[in-house]
Formats: sequence, C-alpha cells, structure tokens
Amino acid sequence: MPHLLHLDSSADLTGSRSRAITAAFAKAWADRGDDHTVTYRDLHTDPLPRLSTPVLHWAPRLRAEGETAPAEDEALQQTILDELLAADVLLVGAPMYNYSLASTLKTWVDYVHVPGVTTTLDATPSQPLAGRQAVVVTSAGGSYAEGSPTEDWDHLTPVLQIILGNALGMVVTVISTELTLASRIPDLAPQIPHSEALFNAALDQATALGATIEAAKPPSV
Amino acid sequence: MPHLLHLDSSADLTGSRSRAITAAFAKAWADRGDDHTVTYRDLHTDPLPRLSTPVLHWAPRLRAEGETAPAEDEALQQTILDELLAADVLLVGAPMYNYSLASTLKTWVDYVHVPGVTTTLDATPSQPLAGRQAVVVTSAGGSYAEGSPTEDWDHLTPVLQIILGNALGMVVTVISTELTLASRIPDLAPQIPHSEALFNAALDQATALGATIEAAKPPSV
Repeated sequence: MPHLLHLDSSADLTGSRSRAITAAFAKAWADRGDDHTVTYRDLHTDPLPRLSTPVLHWAPRLRAEGETAPAEDEALQQTILDELLAADVLLVGAPMYNYSLASTLKTWVDYVHVPGVTTTLDATPSQPLAGRQAVVVTSAGGSYAEGSPTEDWDHLTPVLQIILGNALGMVVTVISTELTLASRIPDLAPQIPHSEALFNAALDQATALGATIEAAKPPSV
Repeated sequence: MPHLLHLDSSADLTGSRSRAITAAFAKAWADRGDDHTVTYRDLHTDPLPRLSTPVLHWAPRLRAEGETAPAEDEALQQTILDELLAADVLLVGAPMYNYSLASTLKTWVDYVHVPGVTTTLDATPSQPLAGRQAVVVTSAGGSYAEGSPTEDWDHLTPVLQIILGNALGMVVTVISTELTLASRIPDLAPQIPHSEALFNAALDQATALGATIEAAKPPSV
C-alpha cells in the first residue's frame, strides 16, 4: 500500500497557498484509490515542542556516556520518526517566513535529522529513507527568482534540500510559488496577475505529480 | 543608562559555546559599572509559542479589514517588542542547528520582524532600531569556512543579517565559532586543537567587544 505523509506548516488557515498546493497533491494521491493512504500532520495547529536536549540529535549508540533524554521526549521523537519511516512519499508544505523555515517546520526537521538513525555519520550505514520521494511545496511572499535583488535570500529551500536530500538521501522535488503577498504589498500590486499564474501553475504541477508519483522500489540491500 | 538585551537559544545548558561566548560579552558589559544594565531572556528554557497567526506579522495599520489576533498573543508580542526597543545593544546567542536557526530563535525573529513597526514597508518610515548595535554569536558544529565543501550551507548567519541588518537597520557584528563537534565526530578529531583555538578567540573577541561597545547616539530625527 503506497503511503503518503502530508505535513503542513503555514500559520494561515484560510488563505495559505502552500496549504492549497499540498491539498491538491494529496487529493490527486487519494483519488488513485483506497490503497493510496495518507497520514496528515499539521505542524502549526498541533505544534511540536522544541527538541528539549541536543542528546536527541544523536542515535543512542553515538551518545556520550551519561547523556540521556527524558523518556517522554524520546517517545515523542520516536513517534515522529516512525511516521516518516512509514511513508513512501513525504509531502511538506513549507512557507517562507522571514527568509527561513516556519519555526514549527524547523522543529520537525530537528526531530528527524538524527545521525546514526536517519543519516549516516560513521562506518555504519544508516540512511533508511534513501531513494524515497520527498515533495517540498514552498511559497514565498516576495520574489527570490534568479536575477532578482533578493535572489540569494531564500534560506528555506536549501535547508530542506540539504536535510531531506543530502542527509536523508531522499529524492527531492520542489514545487514553488512566490509573490504570494502581491495583493497585500502596494509595490507588488502590478505583479498580482503573475502571482496568480504562478499559483495556478503550482496547483497544476501538484495535481499532476500526486496523480503519478511512484513509491521507490524497496532498496536491493 | 546603556542597556543590553541578552538572548540565548542553545539547547545545551552545560557545554554550549554560544552560551559561553555571550556570557563573556555580558560579563564584560556588566563590569563597566552599575549603569550598564542587562535584560536576559533564555529562548530555550523559556520558549515562546510560535506566532499564532500571520496577522501579527503586520502593524495594525497594515492589516486588512477584519484581520485580528487574540489579545493575549498581541500582548506577548508587545512584551517582546518592548524588550527589544528598550535595548541599546542586542546580544544574540545563535547556534546553528541543522544548517538553520534554532527553532526557538526563529520564533523570536517572527515576533520582532514586523513591517510598519520595526521595518519600513511603505511611505511611513518605521525603523526605530536603525543604527543600534546587534552582536550575533554564531556557533556551528562543522566548518562552513570559505573553501570548505559546505561553504554555502550556513543558512543561519544570513537570516540574522537580513532581519537585524537589512530589515531593522541595526549595525550587526558577528562573532563566530565553528567545529564545535570536533570532539564528538571521529572525522573531525584532528581539528580539536583548531576548534579550541577558534573558541578561545571568540571568547576574547566577545570580552573585548563587551568592554568597549558604545550605544548608538540617539538619531538626529
């Protein structure tokens, strides 16, 4: 049974474009049949507590002597890890807030990037998600396109690429939309039609991908 | 009375280098006399809740009709803003976690970057912190120095530069240390002496700066 883990992190529960785009993907996925299952987690409405101690960043075998974490914090982290490990496809709604990740999504990243558990640190291979699909839906208020004055101000997308792609070994597809604040910021008003075109293109891309994306084959090892 | 706002965000309450470096700065500041006052906020042990609604990102005059936020959330944001606005010098302990900000520091950024209140969005100038000093203490587990394979993986420092410098108009000084994980990660073991030299240099830099930094003159307008 191909299984999707769908995360949202927008603080906007009514007009969010990242939420609309992930919803389009998830609908197309679910429309493929009852065997296409979904786990949904809303990181904004049900926020995770910040990682209580850096001990949780390390697999137990990589911790120094005497380093322990509270049992309930270990258990919560295991729940979050199990949820991710059970997913054939990961879908992440990732609005850009202040040129970075939503704090709630950053917290989730801190739970799942665990050397020795989800990424390899030493001679023991530990990259159980390698080859699985991750679909990252980014939305940004302004424009960070190549050639724009703020083209190097996107510190959201690279972090998710590094963590999900480089560290966890997932195959990352980014669906992005921008200029989401065109109708709020007077200087961006001329860009409203372009903003809406970008949004519609992202919705179409998400629908098409949700309808066709294939779970990775099980690793041969 | 020159006043310092001292923030820490490391999750490590015993061995944190960012905490040690901010402490060195704060001690040198306080040693200048009783007129050098300090407000301390620990964003890890006393974490702020994530911004409940994007409405709080905008000055009231920039909100759309009908956009409101819960009164208690407005009040908390005002407390955080007042604390920053009262500071002649801001000191921020900013460990790099997973190539980005600590989630707790990201939350603080979301509270204080408010177009129309702390940064100018339209024809009404609103940059009350312009010209004030911000000292950012970054610490990173690996190396992100120029020429290293991960030289463009630091998505912590640029965000704080953009928010505190470009947006709020503060004069940002970065005191950085790296390779803090040299004694934990076997591959980095040869770099332990270099890591300790960097740490000691950062402590010295913080002490020297805390002993001499001057509050900005009041703006002439």
